[in-house]
Amino acid sequence: MRLFIFAASLRKDSFNKKLASLIARKLEGLGAEVDHGDFREFDMPLFDADLETSNGIPSGTRALADRISAADGTIIVSPEYNFGVPGPLKNAIDWLSRIRPYPTIGKTGFLASAAPSLVGGSRGIIALRPALSFMGMWLSGDSFSLAQAGQAFDEQGGIRDEALDKLLDGMLERFVKVTSSLKID
Amino acid sequence: MRLFIFAASLRKDSFNKKLASLIARKLEGLGAEVDHGDFREFDMPLFDADLETSNGIPSGTRALADRISAADGTIIVSPEYNFGVPGPLKNAIDWLSRIRPYPTIGKTGFLASAAPSLVGGSRGIIALRPALSFMGMWLSGDSFSLAQAGQAFDEQGGIRDEALDKLLDGMLERFVKVTSSLKID
Amino acid sequence: MRLFIFAASLRKDSFNKKLASLIARKLEGLGAEVDHGDFREFDMPLFDADLETSNGIPSGTRALADRISAADGTIIVSPEYNFGVPGPLKNAIDWLSRIRPYPTIGKTGFLASAAPSLVGGSRGIIALRPALSFMGMWLSGDSFSLAQAGQAFDEQGGIRDEALDKLLDGMLERFVKVTSSLKID
Amino acid sequence: MRLFIFAASLRKDSFNKKLASLIARKLEGLGAEVDHGDFREFDMPLFDADLETSNGIPSGTRALADRISAADGTIIVSPEYNFGVPGPLKNAIDWLSRIRPYPTIGKTGFLASAAPSLVGGSRGIIALRPALSFMGMWLSGDSFSLAQAGQAFDEQGGIRDEALDKLLDGMLERFVKVTSSLKID
Repeated sequence: MRLFIFAASLRKDSFNKKLASLIARKLEGLGAEVDHGDFREFDMPLFDADLETSNGIPSGTRALADRISAADGTIIVSPEYNFGVPGPLKNAIDWLSRIRPYPTIGKTGFLASAAPSLVGGSRGIIALRPALSFMGMWLSGDSFSLAQAGQAFDEQGGIRDEALDKLLDGMLERFVKVTSSLKID
Repeated sequence: MRLFIFAASLRKDSFNKKLASLIARKLEGLGAEVDHGDFREFDMPLFDADLETSNGIPSGTRALADRISAADGTIIVSPEYNFGVPGPLKNAIDWLSRIRPYPTIGKTGFLASAAPSLVGGSRGIIALRPALSFMGMWLSGDSFSLAQAGQAFDEQGGIRDEALDKLLDGMLERFVKVTSSLKID
Repeated sequence: MRLFIFAASLRKDSFNKKLASLIARKLEGLGAEVDHGDFREFDMPLFDADLETSNGIPSGTRALADRISAADGTIIVSPEYNFGVPGPLKNAIDWLSRIRPYPTIGKTGFLASAAPSLVGGSRGIIALRPALSFMGMWLSGDSFSLAQAGQAFDEQGGIRDEALDKLLDGMLERFVKVTSSLKID
Repeated sequence: MRLFIFAASLRKDSFNKKLASLIARKLEGLGAEVDHGDFREFDMPLFDADLETSNGIPSGTRALADRISAADGTIIVSPEYNFGVPGPLKNAIDWLSRIRPYPTIGKTGFLASAAPSLVGGSRGIIALRPALSFMGMWLSGDSFSLAQAGQAFDEQGGIRDEALDKLLDGMLERFVKVTSSLKID
């Protein structure tokens, strides 16, 4: 089973990137082949239907679509901006939605977030569900939000709080199990 | 494979009930054993934590939980009230969420709606996703919204518009396929 | 200026009731006449269009509508249930929306929440906005979520954390100012 | 009273631009001074906190903030992309939210949308509310969604359907009245 993971943040020192690295390691430990992408690889302009008409789908969008297509499931680790989906991630989804068939169809998805605040980004994850569901992704009911991310990681990049770490383990085990049993085509 | 379906409307002459009947027939045609519930069977009081402490989980909630547990997947056909989840359905979900483990864990879900308006209830479906996802349900990315429901049905209770009918068929086939391949426990 | 406030919780020992009492006192301190309702006064059945046809609008709904109509603005202090609006509150809104003109039209609204968790109920508030906006209420951009409510109050029912208490004061001052300047009719 | 309006679409031949022009004319007819912006004037990169650290707030963001600040209220006419806020508009809001104090504080807002579909973009408007509310904007409860926009306009750019046109007139009159009476500072 092949899984694709990326953190939907452009900054280098992002808590979401840290969480994505941890999840990637955990998924490998569960036997998955993990493709760990960097959101900077998928650079694309702001969505503009005129630009699409003249220049077609941007290469960064194509690259992102290919990585999603090549995997059985995708894990998005995303910050929350202003109670919603970060503009750059929504922009990527809007471009992706111009490709037919959607690269997301029949794939599983798992959403996670990390944030310095008490809320941990869970509102961004809620706002992400409609678009990805609409594009045919089977989203795990589970999602993982890491609050107070500034204090949450230990030196090895693991989660300090044992109960929280176990919770994440359980979610990922379930996700791997479902992804491997899901055969749509 | 066993599927449970109900329309989240209390009124007798509901478009959502009509759509639920059609979907139930289609699912049986796809080889599923279908348990078709009536929302009136799951009568329960308004959620009140004090009432839960004194009287426990209401019998209507238990009945609904048992039907969900006994099936591999659940189909909810729900109207949209004021851009959101109908109060009675949200109330049922709030009571359900007091049962541990959630009866929804590891089950698949498919959401549909019918409405006399042009919008067809899709905003209610969007608002339904977070709660059911949170309770561990794997919701189909597909969902079906029937707009202008007053004119949409033919005399046999089928959908007049052929393309729309085919769209629904495709969604249900995919849902049955995924539900049958999903083995979580 | 007259303001109506209620906590959308039926249980007696609710953090949201505690927060509503505090906000009521603060609003009185700002010179407002405050009508402090108890959600139990507005008892009503689960929404059912057939019931509306046979029995009309329930008396509990009428009572709630009258209290909203008699005030210039309404403050709702609501828990969050399963990432959304509590079923009983959504049910009340669904019944209210059957009264024409909506009692909420041209009124201001302020939303607050308290919760034992880290999130503080902010996702419930987000989910509340569409329905109330749709019914013509001018909702304050500000909203107040009290996280870890079990530890947040002092013995006098005030907020222990001074900065948080000041934040709430500022929001309420702005709300009173806007409500008093808002003249729609 | 000064109002700022823009359509959140980059393409030239956008239904949302057409609707923005109509609303601008109507607002002028109601006595408002209208500043009609073009979303292309507010070009900015994808949000990146590292970019903010090195280069500060982009000039396109500053320009947008200045236009909002100079007006008493802002009207955003926005398409709906994938059930949510268009990526480019969310990106602009995310950049705007880095300016303190928010240029949106104490301003009124009115949301409208046009779409070729039956839904008319109303789900995008719902998804817009949390971010703008959070940034202190007082959003009109009313919002206007023009469905089947391909057929909705007459040759003069007016709305063919008289009842719909009147509905919009009423909403705008109310918006102008509230904006002029709202005095926060």
